Order: sequence, then structure tokens, then C-alpha cells
Amino acid sequence: MTEIVQFEEVRWPNVWRVMQPVFKAGETYPYAPEISEAEAHTAWIEIPAATYVAVGSDGAVLGTYYIKANQPGLGGHVCNCGYIVSEAARGGGVASQMCEHSQREALRLGFLAMQYNFVVATNEQAVRLWQKHNFEIIGTLPDAFRHARFGLVDAHIMHKNLKG
Amino acid sequence: MTEIVQFEEVRWPNVWRVMQPVFKAGETYPYAPEISEAEAHTAWIEIPAATYVAVGSDGAVLGTYYIKANQPGLGGHVCNCGYIVSEAARGGGVASQMCEHSQREALRLGFLAMQYNFVVATNEQAVRLWQKHNFEIIGTLPDAFRHARFGLVDAHIMHKNLKG
Repeated sequence: MTEIVQFEEVRWPNVWRVMQPVFKAGETYPYAPEISEAEAHTAWIEIPAATYVAVGSDGAVLGTYYIKANQPGLGGHVCNCGYIVSEAARGGGVASQMCEHSQREALRLGFLAMQYNFVVATNEQAVRLWQKHNFEIIGTLPDAFRHARFGLVDAHIMHKNLKG
Repeated sequence: MTEIVQFEEVRWPNVWRVMQPVFKAGETYPYAPEISEAEAHTAWIEIPAATYVAVGSDGAVLGTYYIKANQPGLGGHVCNCGYIVSEAARGGGVASQMCEHSQREALRLGFLAMQYNFVVATNEQAVRLWQKHNFEIIGTLPDAFRHARFGLVDAHIMHKNLKG
């Protein structure tokens, strides 16, 4: 039974252990593969409005996501989220669970819509998953991501209205 | 004869005088209309990689623009710019001049493409101008901007490959 809880600082070492290999792989997130622990903490914990952790029944960190306004002031009613699932937990539905949780949290925090700015096109599993959750590809940025194995590849902007 | 020069701190009071009414109007930029001078300085001067000023032959500040990477690390080869023209200088070609200048500067700084994340759809003059400079609408974010007079309106993502 996976539970999603608000991030608390005591969990950071385990959260970072889940995040680092994802950034290091250079296949899904634009953060520099050699991003430092302090920079990752700033990006994932300090800047966002809220960060959450998916915890397995044994207490292991299975995933994490953040939520923040995608623009300041007059664009601040649309939020942005980023999700990471641990290597061990892939394919177990944690991403879906976090996606649904984040939509409820976004509404609770007063956001009207959710936007993903940079879904790497070769990350087909993610694209399909977000589409399954009724996110729409709004546009595709050509050669926007320098993929560790494939070189320059496209990135999608995806969007969902949360008010239905 | 309008000249475009790198921003220097001594010009800030005049740059802020040009920016503030634009933010205050709440029609084109998402920054909160009541943004403080310090917050504007952070957003326009400190965060960007570089900021420029368009100066008239009498020394007056006619406009300003910034340039910065639109994503970190593996997305850092695409830049983002923001432009503001003073009320007095509107319609005089300063925006076009800054747009062309910014593309040259972007190439000089090593960027391969330029992306505008948030061109308010009701700002038709800007949309037409960027299209004239061969920027393409990549996608349109529904109801992304809370316009001071029109309520929620769309915003375009626009993009141009700088390498031709």
C-alpha cells in the first residue's frame, strides 16, 4: 500500500537517492546530470510551493513530486509539477498515483490548470501516461532537449484543465 | 538613432520607470501588477544571463530586454527573452530592433534557438511582430493569463530556430 505524504526534511537523503540516478541518466529531466545535492534540494524542495513523497508499506521512498505556480502573478493560477519514481518502483503505478494526487492537491491549493513544460518526446511511457490522465499535448518544442543517448530530441508541452 | 547597449546599474531608475507602467497595466506580462522595484530588479536584471537597454539619441531609455536560458543543463541551449518598450517610443521600431539584436546576442552566447513562453494572445501587435521575425506559434495555453480588462485569455508559446 503506497501512501503519499508531504515532504519532511528528514526524508531528504532518501528522496535524493531516488532523484540522483534519474538526473544522472540525462534522459528525462533537463537538470544537469552532475547537479549537486544542494542544487537539487533548491529545485525540488525550496522553490516549489509543496513537495510530496510516495512511501511504500515498508517506509521506502518510491517516488516524489513537486507542485508550483508555472508563472508569477497573473499567470499564477496554472501550476506545474515534476514527478520521479524510484528505479525499484517503476511500473507499479506510483506515477499514476502521484499524478492523481497532484491534481487533487493543485485544486486544494487553488490552481485551475496544470501544465508540464518539458516532457521529453522519447520518454514515451510518460507521454502515454499523462495522456491517459487526460493531459493534452499543446505543442512540441523542436530539438529542445539534449538526450544523453539520442542527442537533440523534441519536448512536449502538456496541459490539463482541472476544473473539468 | 537608437542604440542598444548592455545594461549598467546606473540606468536602473530609468529602466524601472519604463517597466513599471507595463507591469502595472496587467495586459502583457504575468508579473504581479504591484510588483516591487526590488522584485523587478531580480526578475529582469539578476536572474537573466544578460540585460540590454535601447537608448535614444538624447540618452532616454526607449526599451529594455533580457536574455536567459529557458531550461537548465540539458535544455540550456534554448534561450528565452522578454522585451519592453517605453510608452513614448511605441510604434517606432524599437521592439523590432531589440528582437533582431537579441537573436544576434543569443547566437553569440551560444544559444541555438529562442522560445517565448507566454505571449498573451490579446497582445496582437506583439504576436504579429514576432511572426514577422519568423517566430512560430508552437502551441496555445488556454486561459493562461488573467488580463486586467478581459479576464482569462490565452497565451502563445512561440519559437524560432536561430541556426536557420
